[in-house]
Amino acid sequence: MKVGIVGASGYAGETLVKLLLGHPRVELAAVTSRSHAGKALSQVIPAVRGADRGIRFVASDATALAAGDIPLFFLALPHGAAAEFARALVGSGKRVIDLSADFRVSDLATYERYYGKHAAPELLPYARYVLPELTAPGWRDGAKIVASPGCYPTSILIPLVPLLRDKVVSREHIVANSFSGVSGAGRKAEETYLFVERSESAKAYGLVRHRHLSEIEEQLALLTGAPTVIQFNPHLAPMRYGIATTITVPAAPGATTESLYASWGKAYGAAPFVQILASGETPDTAHVVGTNRIDMSAVHDPRTGNFVITSAEDNLVKGTAGQAIQTMNLWYGFEETAGLF
Amino acid sequence: MKVGIVGASGYAGETLVKLLLGHPRVELAAVTSRSHAGKALSQVIPAVRGADRGIRFVASDATALAAGDIPLFFLALPHGAAAEFARALVGSGKRVIDLSADFRVSDLATYERYYGKHAAPELLPYARYVLPELTAPGWRDGAKIVASPGCYPTSILIPLVPLLRDKVVSREHIVANSFSGVSGAGRKAEETYLFVERSESAKAYGLVRHRHLSEIEEQLALLTGAPTVIQFNPHLAPMRYGIATTITVPAAPGATTESLYASWGKAYGAAPFVQILASGETPDTAHVVGTNRIDMSAVHDPRTGNFVITSAEDNLVKGTAGQAIQTMNLWYGFEETAGLF
Amino acid sequence: MKVGIVGASGYAGETLVKLLLGHPRVELAAVTSRSHAGKALSQVIPAVRGADRGIRFVASDATALAAGDIPLFFLALPHGAAAEFARALVGSGKRVIDLSADFRVSDLATYERYYGKHAAPELLPYARYVLPELTAPGWRDGAKIVASPGCYPTSILIPLVPLLRDKVVSREHIVANSFSGVSGAGRKAEETYLFVERSESAKAYGLVRHRHLSEIEEQLALLTGAPTVIQFNPHLAPMRYGIATTITVPAAPGATTESLYASWGKAYGAAPFVQILASGETPDTAHVVGTNRIDMSAVHDPRTGNFVITSAEDNLVKGTAGQAIQTMNLWYGFEETAGLF
Amino acid sequence: MKVGIVGASGYAGETLVKLLLGHPRVELAAVTSRSHAGKALSQVIPAVRGADRGIRFVASDATALAAGDIPLFFLALPHGAAAEFARALVGSGKRVIDLSADFRVSDLATYERYYGKHAAPELLPYARYVLPELTAPGWRDGAKIVASPGCYPTSILIPLVPLLRDKVVSREHIVANSFSGVSGAGRKAEETYLFVERSESAKAYGLVRHRHLSEIEEQLALLTGAPTVIQFNPHLAPMRYGIATTITVPAAPGATTESLYASWGKAYGAAPFVQILASGETPDTAHVVGTNRIDMSAVHDPRTGNFVITSAEDNLVKGTAGQAIQTMNLWYGFEETAGLF
Repeated sequence: MKVGIVGASGYAGETLVKLLLGHPRVELAAVTSRSHAGKALSQVIPAVRGADRGIRFVASDATALAAGDIPLFFLALPHGAAAEFARALVGSGKRVIDLSADFRVSDLATYERYYGKHAAPELLPYARYVLPELTAPGWRDGAKIVASPGCYPTSILIPLVPLLRDKVVSREHIVANSFSGVSGAGRKAEETYLFVERSESAKAYGLVRHRHLSEIEEQLALLTGAPTVIQFNPHLAPMRYGIATTITVPAAPGATTESLYASWGKAYGAAPFVQILASGETPDTAHVVGTNRIDMSAVHDPRTGNFVITSAEDNLVKGTAGQAIQTMNLWYGFEETAGLF
Repeated sequence: MKVGIVGASGYAGETLVKLLLGHPRVELAAVTSRSHAGKALSQVIPAVRGADRGIRFVASDATALAAGDIPLFFLALPHGAAAEFARALVGSGKRVIDLSADFRVSDLATYERYYGKHAAPELLPYARYVLPELTAPGWRDGAKIVASPGCYPTSILIPLVPLLRDKVVSREHIVANSFSGVSGAGRKAEETYLFVERSESAKAYGLVRHRHLSEIEEQLALLTGAPTVIQFNPHLAPMRYGIATTITVPAAPGATTESLYASWGKAYGAAPFVQILASGETPDTAHVVGTNRIDMSAVHDPRTGNFVITSAEDNLVKGTAGQAIQTMNLWYGFEETAGLF
Repeated sequence: MKVGIVGASGYAGETLVKLLLGHPRVELAAVTSRSHAGKALSQVIPAVRGADRGIRFVASDATALAAGDIPLFFLALPHGAAAEFARALVGSGKRVIDLSADFRVSDLATYERYYGKHAAPELLPYARYVLPELTAPGWRDGAKIVASPGCYPTSILIPLVPLLRDKVVSREHIVANSFSGVSGAGRKAEETYLFVERSESAKAYGLVRHRHLSEIEEQLALLTGAPTVIQFNPHLAPMRYGIATTITVPAAPGATTESLYASWGKAYGAAPFVQILASGETPDTAHVVGTNRIDMSAVHDPRTGNFVITSAEDNLVKGTAGQAIQTMNLWYGFEETAGLF
Repeated sequence: MKVGIVGASGYAGETLVKLLLGHPRVELAAVTSRSHAGKALSQVIPAVRGADRGIRFVASDATALAAGDIPLFFLALPHGAAAEFARALVGSGKRVIDLSADFRVSDLATYERYYGKHAAPELLPYARYVLPELTAPGWRDGAKIVASPGCYPTSILIPLVPLLRDKVVSREHIVANSFSGVSGAGRKAEETYLFVERSESAKAYGLVRHRHLSEIEEQLALLTGAPTVIQFNPHLAPMRYGIATTITVPAAPGATTESLYASWGKAYGAAPFVQILASGETPDTAHVVGTNRIDMSAVHDPRTGNFVITSAEDNLVKGTAGQAIQTMNLWYGFEETAGLF
């Protein structure tokens, strides 16, 4: 099956390219970029030298893509830029998996409070937020645009949702601290992302009003049946890839480590990309980077009555491109693990 | 004034050496190490080549040191090893600043619950835990051993204590997440601390029962007038130096960002090594490493009602050796900033 | 086809495991380790959690392996330890690909000058040093043990051999400087390989008598028809993976950048894992790590009359495990690129 | 004595600021920057929070500075920008230490071949290239502008010059390979210097025509009495600070390791910032970063007849700002080591 990528020159787009080039069920038939049209894939993404099948970037022309024969497009564009393409492609009956936040929040008012004016609100009814391990299977009905979740939200929702649903944890006083590799900021030539600035540097940023709160809390309400407000504290870590998230939340009355693990086992026993570690063993981003896996673990603290829940993922794979491909696999009936590790 | 360092071959000891070699009021007169006796300082600590004043390591002989003419010793030994030296030195009327945890906790039962059998409990009445910015000045009375605080506790107590004292924050649901450079683990030749294992790796460790909880909670009770239990979640970050701590705690009723900053201003307005950043600007370990400074900041989250408080310090300087020297300066009436930056 | 790995718990062994688990033509049927017998693969190599096919380590029992039905074994043992296994396996008609240096040097006196007493000299006649792009195809005749080349030698021989053969460069005054990621030193719990020691550190080591000189110079003589002595200067760089090699060598009379590139084109035009970059564009280890590729480039310096030749590879893939698998593919008639990127 | 810095917002300027703030003999009286005029020093250079003496940036107004009472200015401006300031300041009888390359090359034709049109050739007669350990003392006569050497040249000239002068090494076939931390590229918001691009990356750059060749070869001719052409191969390493240089050069007939070390001993026995390590021990950038020291060592290779000479320095200290301050100390009769480590 042919697929295309719109906007493939950022880190998310690059990761999509690398993964799709090796996917056994699809053929990467079009890769677009405004600035690199005409260049060989390997010229812009040196990591795929010798393995780019001679593919060349084409111009990001929504009309041309919509008129072509590729049935599915991944959009890896900056926030706000997806709308034009989504409109043209969906209008021509194509399917879209969007890696940006543009279609992740179904409530327009919430979206606009965090992101500003929505560029294509008329498409929202056709969009589905799909976190494969959690989203109810019926998403395929009516979905024309899949909004692939954000990196931080993935690292928080996967561990937390079953525990809220099964009343293992309190719905209050949830604190999620995340440490992310610098690639999460994107390929922006800004001083603050320079090697000399970020090496040997750890710092919090985006406190209180991080945009990812919009989808985290909408999904928490949707998936667990009640509104839930969390404290989300992101940080930059001196590494390129990976997110390590640590969630502290009071245990529900009577909940134990065993009931927590039972809740996870029920939710994820068959999930190929969720690895549950023994209590006391903590996940390490270095063990998941390059894979589509999220590792997680939990301990109970009898002194505070809290559970401390840890997760680790590759921000560009399970946190972005890998998860998008996992969703494609489900959308098209491929093996869920096709092309992923 | 002559000073000596016992056990100078670990990272804390090295940092003491580098700082004391440049201190304008003291002369580094003895540096001991069991394994390096006889070697030049620069032979073991290459960073001080050409600047080691020809000093050679001597054997770690408590009796010999106690009989000599050096009035003050810094102990930079592994946990449990300080007792023998403290005993001999204090017995001969010397003063001791201990960088280990051996004398940090005054309640013997608490200490033993976290660290095991205490090697010199009879010395506890002469020991004083001194965090210069917070410990009541009277510590000089009767102090023969100063227990210099741990790195994580420093990063938590300095921001938190005034806010508890001034009832700006709740005493419950306190969550402290810390990210530390790998030097905090010490110079141990263990696989888990190898470059290949720790580079591009972020992970939680020591959850629930980290030893530093013993001094954190004893000091919180002592300095704020009531017992306080906190969630402390340490993590290893892929950097050598620095601790970034993020504390989430509910605001007390009526507390505002202004009242929080007023509390800090009152406590630290004259503190030369505490830098309070504007709300919204977050501290960065890269800006404090190499200095004896702790930078901190806070924001209020109206959605959750929490304050999110961030601090950054150099784990080996303000977190260990620099703070010990700052305390020496106060103990001997030097300028508080002598030899420190 | 079934394959086995003997000694899979070091960095080379881990890389073999990860690559072979995904190889479309082979089944990883046995993985041995003295210290980890009985443990699941994913327990020792967390990167393959969820993807280890339930494989468990077995004891490193040469006799048992020799009696089994696996036709090919990769040996990833420390220097000197391969002999016992090679003997037993070859004695039972198995084939062996050895990642160590034990069978790389055919001249026994040379080998012993660099490595000490050889543990199985009687096997040397059945061993073949195989660098796929360069070794004459006849190696399959009589080969029972393939000695897979070292990481540094690969980065030097591939660029240099055609140029010597085609008389594009002088045979004298060759200087090869290499910078390697720390994984090249192996998984040794020694202080010098600790994160705190190696981060932000670049230094030369192993000057003058590095063991790899034995195979570099034997291969240079063998492949280019005359003895050649080179200056080889290895260095450790503050990264985990990758080797960047820069070779300076006087141009032969009349040689030009064009004739150099023609020589490379002739030698490697069809080589799937050799990427020749335009003169003026230099290879970057970050672009090859994770792949089995070596990128290279050359410039001519009219002021000095030298060529400066640069290459980059992943020390554990093209430099070790990937190259071994590439050789297996050729040995068994699989596609040369099977299981590799 | 009052000093000023013109253009203090780059990495070289920052290093100057940090060092001069702690210098016992000078007072940092003016710090200029076009973009930061009016801001506190600590606002732009967070590392000096609490220690910036309330100093604020002023506009980069050459006339105003020339009219003031500061006798000495350090220029830390981009290439080409120093001329305007040098002209005005020297015209008013001020002294200038320039950290850029603008006055490093006395031969105008050579300068222009590498750098383009010279902006103030009339000042060249008043400029002196000063590498403290090597430049003949008479530089103080007639010097109004001191051109402080480049980072790579320092790492090459210091080890090499005495050996050429004393005929310990050949004048031909000199190959200098250098690995530099990324700060050497300056604080430029360009994609290639982003953390994600430079981490885990080693690559050669600037081969054949690096601008530093102009001063390296001019100084070699000047200091050793004959023209000398070298191969200089710079590389970027995944670290922030430091330069590790490895020079391969044939030994002169009859030269031995002893005669090499004797030559160094003669040249540098009294040099406070040159540390000569035993043959066989190699310098490590991690041991010199933060100091004004250059460590060096050499070995002889009997097989090739070459010496392999290694050096390590902090590119921003001994390679830039520290050396400039060392020169100021000599210019004004301070202790040569004043304010430096």
